[in-house]
Amino acid sequence: MTDRTEAMSPLELYESLMAQGDKVRALKTAKADKTEIDAAVQLLLKLKVDYKQVTGQDYKAGSPPSESSVVHDNGPAADGADDEDTVDPWNVSTTNAKGVDYDKLIVRFGSSKIDKELVDRIEKVAGQKPHRFLRRGIFFSHRDMHQVLDAYEKNKSFYLYTGRGPSSEAMHVGHLIPFIFTKWLQDVFDIPLVIQMTDDEKYLWKDLTLEDCHRFAVENAKDIIACGFDVNKTFIFSDLDYMGSSREFYTNVVKIQKHVTFNQVKGIFGFTDSDCIGKISFPAIQAAPSFSNSFPQIFGGRKDIPCLIPCAIDQDPYFRMTRDVAPRIGYPKPALLHSTFFPALQGAQTKMSASDPNSSIFLTDTPKQIKNKVNKHAFSGGKDTVDEHRKYGGNPDVDVSFMYLTFFLEDDEQLEKIRQDYTSGALLTGELKKLLIETLQPMIAEHQERRKQVTDEMVKQFMTPRPLNFNC
Amino acid sequence: MTDRTEAMSPLELYESLMAQGDKVRALKTAKADKTEIDAAVQLLLKLKVDYKQVTGQDYKAGSPPSESSVVHDNGPAADGADDEDTVDPWNVSTTNAKGVDYDKLIVRFGSSKIDKELVDRIEKVAGQKPHRFLRRGIFFSHRDMHQVLDAYEKNKSFYLYTGRGPSSEAMHVGHLIPFIFTKWLQDVFDIPLVIQMTDDEKYLWKDLTLEDCHRFAVENAKDIIACGFDVNKTFIFSDLDYMGSSREFYTNVVKIQKHVTFNQVKGIFGFTDSDCIGKISFPAIQAAPSFSNSFPQIFGGRKDIPCLIPCAIDQDPYFRMTRDVAPRIGYPKPALLHSTFFPALQGAQTKMSASDPNSSIFLTDTPKQIKNKVNKHAFSGGKDTVDEHRKYGGNPDVDVSFMYLTFFLEDDEQLEKIRQDYTSGALLTGELKKLLIETLQPMIAEHQERRKQVTDEMVKQFMTPRPLNFNC
Repeated sequence: MTDRTEAMSPLELYESLMAQGDKVRALKTAKADKTEIDAAVQLLLKLKVDYKQVTGQDYKAGSPPSESSVVHDNGPAADGADDEDTVDPWNVSTTNAKGVDYDKLIVRFGSSKIDKELVDRIEKVAGQKPHRFLRRGIFFSHRDMHQVLDAYEKNKSFYLYTGRGPSSEAMHVGHLIPFIFTKWLQDVFDIPLVIQMTDDEKYLWKDLTLEDCHRFAVENAKDIIACGFDVNKTFIFSDLDYMGSSREFYTNVVKIQKHVTFNQVKGIFGFTDSDCIGKISFPAIQAAPSFSNSFPQIFGGRKDIPCLIPCAIDQDPYFRMTRDVAPRIGYPKPALLHSTFFPALQGAQTKMSASDPNSSIFLTDTPKQIKNKVNKHAFSGGKDTVDEHRKYGGNPDVDVSFMYLTFFLEDDEQLEKIRQDYTSGALLTGELKKLLIETLQPMIAEHQERRKQVTDEMVKQFMTPRPLNFNC
Repeated sequence: MTDRTEAMSPLELYESLMAQGDKVRALKTAKADKTEIDAAVQLLLKLKVDYKQVTGQDYKAGSPPSESSVVHDNGPAADGADDEDTVDPWNVSTTNAKGVDYDKLIVRFGSSKIDKELVDRIEKVAGQKPHRFLRRGIFFSHRDMHQVLDAYEKNKSFYLYTGRGPSSEAMHVGHLIPFIFTKWLQDVFDIPLVIQMTDDEKYLWKDLTLEDCHRFAVENAKDIIACGFDVNKTFIFSDLDYMGSSREFYTNVVKIQKHVTFNQVKGIFGFTDSDCIGKISFPAIQAAPSFSNSFPQIFGGRKDIPCLIPCAIDQDPYFRMTRDVAPRIGYPKPALLHSTFFPALQGAQTKMSASDPNSSIFLTDTPKQIKNKVNKHAFSGGKDTVDEHRKYGGNPDVDVSFMYLTFFLEDDEQLEKIRQDYTSGALLTGELKKLLIETLQPMIAEHQERRKQVTDEMVKQFMTPRPLNFNC
């Protein structure tokens, strides 16, 4: 560790923290640029981690460090409770280097844990080895997945719905997580999939033109198609296009909008009176694809086909709202499978963000860029010197390279061996990073190869409302 | 006058007013049925008029009538100031039997009076005698009409936009006012017209199904077509249909929604946190047809064709908002022509309401029904006995039959003679009512005849997005 906070006294750190906290609040009040706020929050979180390392205490505004502070070296962040996790569709942050406390999130959101019993059941029903995201708890939470499987066992099919907010052309590997998993679900259950590109949302939230947002939607669709989706079972749509071409979709949007009050979206999303009316009514647009009659070209007007939504947990507020509305407008509630976040290179306190190039491995990165980013930025759970590392071992729980391998290395045994070797100190940080680089480089290169083969004609085909292979 | 309030003392009347005021507030708080609230408000207004008649003072809550009250017989309502006029898209009421104080409304809304100069200019530019609604101040207020005429004189065309909220199958004669006038404008200026049927709005505001609202939109379109619009210059659309078939329309809706905050719609429309998000975002949908690129099939993507909106003044809040947004999204502000309200049979304190059958002459009424309604319910400005009437004359300013003749009798000289004879007492109330009946009966019968000839095929043609005759 070489940064400037290392040399600070506990009181200096405390004062830096107070100042940084004020700065974050001021930026938020001034509605500053998200990149700027994120950077300030990132530094605040880093200071909190340093503070705990140096003092052994959690930072508390108004409580300067006590004289009796003792220095514990528990690694970048101590274990234990953290009530400060922020998780909503626009912000994800925690002070814990292991990332958000997902067990607590399940309690807070009122969802259910994906336990071994459910993973075994999915294996049984699908007749396939569960995807590594299930085996490793990356998809960790669900709503009503048992009901979907109950129906499927009785030969009642369902459909998948996921989406993407196209805020730039640049997608990073974290963005692929729901799509990689959704493709697996589509393959093993042989069911239709709808993918919503919320270009209208990005226009409403960001300083972008409608034209740019729509262009990003089409560009992002290419990366999504490159994940290998079956064109006969997949409909990708831009909200701007589909709202203006589907009476049934708009009809469902209006139905939902009638049954949700401003008080409700204020409570769920934190909207204020200063927000534009587009933001306030948008949640209905993300809710509408949860109902099968939004897609008469696929489901022939049926409104009772169950919907399963694989998504990152930060999207759950939209679907809590959707599930609340569904029975009141005569529709089944969508089921959900929630994933954890894909950590930033700098550590699991925040998720990877396309607006900070150094936090992300982009799908357009060259092998060299991948190597440099991992070597330079991937937060390490290793010790400062080789000798110390050999003696005390590394901490895979906070090591970003190890986390990424958990996402992308298919072989369970190899992954477990890496964990053990890193923990024991047999595997050095540089060696661990090399393993990650060798995993990412071919994966990204293959993605780029597949994306090159995605023609405009193919995009048009995926994005045209049309019947799909579906036997209900 | 034979009703029970006549015999009350000033203090009894005061106490009845207090109680009725409480009742109205309680009904509003309980969000009671609109018909029930309207009836209670109607009685409240009547009590206020009676109170002023009996005491010579305006009713003021908390100020019982003073001992020195003197009885003035100024007719049902005194002249002069009235600060209690309520005018918004959902409520219109006043305590003044002459109706809303429109001069004050012009000041309050910040619009401009349609003065003789403007009427003369319209006559000159259009090359036609001004419509009786202009000659008689029924269209009394405008925004930017001179700019529209300036451009038209330089051979720059414009288009017309008006609309209807289809809350039931039953339309009354008051609903025809904007359409009669709009048809005249279309004819004399030879320009395209778009007519928005806000079936989505009615679904959001009323206890109706989407299917009903859409059915009402189509049924009402038949009555509108029966006004004689040119199919080659007129596009009628249901929001539910058109939003789901026009990318350009939805694009404009989102643009507007991005530039209006909840604070703004709260201020303009009085929305609260308990309102559904559909209501809160709806104003953008009524705003969007003000911009020509919402109709690429007509205007070929041009966004600079000026729009002129003839409508009743209660719709102005929507277009104040629209005019505020327009320059911020690079569009011209729409111009407006505002009409007065069409009074209820019971008096000009409220407008005709389809939800109260006795307040309205419906377009489906038989000659006998028309006769009975006018004779039984039309509020009279005449005196109680023939002798008194002959001696003191009637008051045409509060007489509903005379007001209706102002709307529908084309001959200026005949109308003026009726006014003079009624004021002098030469014309009795029964005779005046007979003149109105003889005007309305053939007018409604002819409307019914024309409506019968409107086929489903014609409706479909009017309601299909398509090019119109337009030379820009």
